Amino acid sequence: MSKENWKTGITAIQANEVRLRGYRIDELMGKITFGQAIYLAIMGDLPSNAVAKMIEAILVSSVDHGAATPSTLATRTAASTGAPLNAAVACGLLSINRFHGGAIEGCMEMLNAALQADEGLDRPIYDIASAVINEHREQERRLPGLGHRLHTDDPRTRKLFQLAEDLSLAGKGVELLQAINQALESQGKPLPINVDGAIAAILVDLDIPSPLANAFFFMARLPGLVAHVYEEQSRERPMRRIHPSAHEYDGPAPRSFKDPQEG
Amino acid sequence: MSKENWKTGITAIQANEVRLRGYRIDELMGKITFGQAIYLAIMGDLPSNAVAKMIEAILVSSVDHGAATPSTLATRTAASTGAPLNAAVACGLLSINRFHGGAIEGCMEMLNAALQADEGLDRPIYDIASAVINEHREQERRLPGLGHRLHTDDPRTRKLFQLAEDLSLAGKGVELLQAINQALESQGKPLPINVDGAIAAILVDLDIPSPLANAFFFMARLPGLVAHVYEEQSRERPMRRIHPSAHEYDGPAPRSFKDPQEG
Amino acid sequence: MSKENWKTGITAIQANEVRLRGYRIDELMGKITFGQAIYLAIMGDLPSNAVAKMIEAILVSSVDHGAATPSTLATRTAASTGAPLNAAVACGLLSINRFHGGAIEGCMEMLNAALQADEGLDRPIYDIASAVINEHREQERRLPGLGHRLHTDDPRTRKLFQLAEDLSLAGKGVELLQAINQALESQGKPLPINVDGAIAAILVDLDIPSPLANAFFFMARLPGLVAHVYEEQSRERPMRRIHPSAHEYDGPAPRSFKDPQEG
Amino acid sequence: MSKENWKTGITAIQANEVRLRGYRIDELMGKITFGQAIYLAIMGDLPSNAVAKMIEAILVSSVDHGAATPSTLATRTAASTGAPLNAAVACGLLSINRFHGGAIEGCMEMLNAALQADEGLDRPIYDIASAVINEHREQERRLPGLGHRLHTDDPRTRKLFQLAEDLSLAGKGVELLQAINQALESQGKPLPINVDGAIAAILVDLDIPSPLANAFFFMARLPGLVAHVYEEQSRERPMRRIHPSAHEYDGPAPRSFKDPQEG
Repeated sequence: MSKENWKTGITAIQANEVRLRGYRIDELMGKITFGQAIYLAIMGDLPSNAVAKMIEAILVSSVDHGAATPSTLATRTAASTGAPLNAAVACGLLSINRFHGGAIEGCMEMLNAALQADEGLDRPIYDIASAVINEHREQERRLPGLGHRLHTDDPRTRKLFQLAEDLSLAGKGVELLQAINQALESQGKPLPINVDGAIAAILVDLDIPSPLANAFFFMARLPGLVAHVYEEQSRERPMRRIHPSAHEYDGPAPRSFKDPQEG
Repeated sequence: MSKENWKTGITAIQANEVRLRGYRIDELMGKITFGQAIYLAIMGDLPSNAVAKMIEAILVSSVDHGAATPSTLATRTAASTGAPLNAAVACGLLSINRFHGGAIEGCMEMLNAALQADEGLDRPIYDIASAVINEHREQERRLPGLGHRLHTDDPRTRKLFQLAEDLSLAGKGVELLQAINQALESQGKPLPINVDGAIAAILVDLDIPSPLANAFFFMARLPGLVAHVYEEQSRERPMRRIHPSAHEYDGPAPRSFKDPQEG
Repeated sequence: MSKENWKTGITAIQANEVRLRGYRIDELMGKITFGQAIYLAIMGDLPSNAVAKMIEAILVSSVDHGAATPSTLATRTAASTGAPLNAAVACGLLSINRFHGGAIEGCMEMLNAALQADEGLDRPIYDIASAVINEHREQERRLPGLGHRLHTDDPRTRKLFQLAEDLSLAGKGVELLQAINQALESQGKPLPINVDGAIAAILVDLDIPSPLANAFFFMARLPGLVAHVYEEQSRERPMRRIHPSAHEYDGPAPRSFKDPQEG
Repeated sequence: MSKENWKTGITAIQANEVRLRGYRIDELMGKITFGQAIYLAIMGDLPSNAVAKMIEAILVSSVDHGAATPSTLATRTAASTGAPLNAAVACGLLSINRFHGGAIEGCMEMLNAALQADEGLDRPIYDIASAVINEHREQERRLPGLGHRLHTDDPRTRKLFQLAEDLSLAGKGVELLQAINQALESQGKPLPINVDGAIAAILVDLDIPSPLANAFFFMARLPGLVAHVYEEQSRERPMRRIHPSAHEYDGPAPRSFKDPQEG
């Protein structure tokens, strides 16, 4: 074998056959959801039903967060200059970093490091939480995954944690982040767990490697960015000045979900 | 209202409430799949169950197509220089254009134009198909959505059309593309319908606007690109020369899908 | 030769030798400016002294146009999320399209098409100009390269045309665009030539292919984008809401150029 | 002043006046080169003549390095799918990272840290160099700016150092990197200074902040990327498999620079 040869374990292609992680992709089509296929592509195996439900909920939670987020504004700004759809969306993708979405990776690393440092010690979870808080305070670093501009009780966080409980997936990651949250509250310095934090804690408990963390955010956000490009290019004139917050919602009125099967 | 003000119909945000197209996102979490959320975000309403199944299958069909596609090679090349995950994936996204993935939009436009030109005429579908073929031949343009380097009978195409039939979603779009395919065959110049073509025909029948066409391909492909970045950065040395085809598959052996519920 | 082999005429590399378009790059260093090297890389030969001066002036004209342009806003938005320098700048680059910077290509195509249509006819330039105006009016298309939000007499346009005259480089391209401008004025519908238009007319006279047009704008704008990333990340807090026009200049006071050699 | 207001010190725009760092841009056009404008935009003041010459040489040195570099391959790969010029170039820009071009920033940080640690000590330069080498060895880290796949005596390095001497700009940065190089050689482990290292050492001596380091590489490389897109799209068929090294040069034969003024 020449030294140019290399190997890949993701997809095997031959004439009239495409196998993703060993499965014929046409066999999977119609049987698994896109959320399951995402897990399969990235993690190498199909998720259990519980994990699949959790992954779907994580992805649904982050589809869009309005027109005022930086990734949306970068995308709309590019769209307003006449950028093709993929280039406008790429600007949003490139705006998902440490301070926007990127807190998932930071929070996972914080939780993983604290849990690893505790191995063999099995200290009470509140002691681990206090150690994490003190360490960040001493180094004057923010606690990733905690705090939000707007939401004091983020409904997405609440629902993600509830689903993790219901599906028996919540483990040490969720426990530790909630302990950090409670310790801060008992110290009179309450900081709500944001949706990045909730996702991070659950991904820790699902054994997802932290370098993949941000992917779960940006894959989820892509359809939102697509919707903003389409709205910008069909509704607004090119090259308008896009005020980052002076916008009003004029979409469908509040409505409740009815399972389409029942409809 | 100042002239700076603008409107958006996608997402309404207020403290502790996020509503996507009118629905509380925490209410949707756990109840709908990511595929349904994608349709809701982009199209503005929840899909029927049949449409949801079709969209999931379209997205699953395009998750990955191996290491030799240009979007994967651009992504791996950037990854090998130490690019962050989002930047490497952005290179793949920017490589999805007219000649790669972009055929979906071209094929939709071809089908939509032909069907619109026929309105009120109701010619037999083979006559419309012949007109399309002749027109492209005269202008020396390729028929988008037909032909493939490797697959003479793409299993993804076959399965997408079968699902569209089973779900009673196949309409004039599918009918016309299949008529074009059959007309070419009867002329002794067979050209298989590729997966881009199959997706295009079905999106026509789902009334998806053609400027959104490529989004269905690139949203689907993102998890594949993420998997390739992770494999490249964990398995290969930086700055290697990436031969575009001298690679072998060494992932899981061929396996059959078992519904996890039954497992 | 295997069918994998391909050819390139740009740069020859061997151990301890780098030749750009035939010249040893270390021989060029210290002898030519970056502007000359840009022309050499793209066009394949060194420019004459007059052309080199013209190219430098074009590049200098477009280095920056303040904080309110879409490319700058997209770049600053990404920068405020913690994007690396190259990713933030990429967002600006991806925001240079048809409605921003991209008018150069459109204007070149308009001028080239009109001049080509006139070949062999040699009509008076005002007749060609009128034909161009009428054609755009009939098709309800804007005249690319004319009109500006703010500048009614763009000083960059004025200077570019003056330099083109002084260097004896102005030809049919400049003549036609100026004739269009004058015809509009005599019709009582004055539209100033903007800097994109001036660059386009001169690039036509320099025989630069129009698909390369936008490169002269985006190569020129890159240092401006770099300066904005650095200012954003060193002066502002992350994730601020960036108002597109509510900013004031607080840099160096107006000053006049003194040739540093005389200083 | 509302809290939305913000300030910028780069460019002041008003009707019919554009001032870059205080200078009317139309006054600069025709008087300064693009290289000088780059320095002005980024650093805030015009460079001295010596610094201007040095900056031009740095930019010229990095215009292109052939078709086998990752940034070029990512750019050509995107170009072959039909990407617009700016999107294809953006892929190259996003491929300039830690392992490709990014060594400039790493090397600057290494040199700055070592020189700062020495402040007040004034140890002989060889002692500082030895300390740097030992520290990297202990931490099993590579020395950024040293070593090259191909060039054992990079002609660009040699010329940059010679110009820095001739222009009296070489200082502690150049001295330290050369001392590191000599120490390695005397230890029997020679590692040539690569062009990234030479640029880094000189940028240290020019007091350029290290976060701006990579900009000098990627601004310089942009015209090379533009040339590769144009060549790919005008010479090759779409979607070809791009072998990363099986290419031959067929451009202009070796030629010597003649100052165009003499021609």
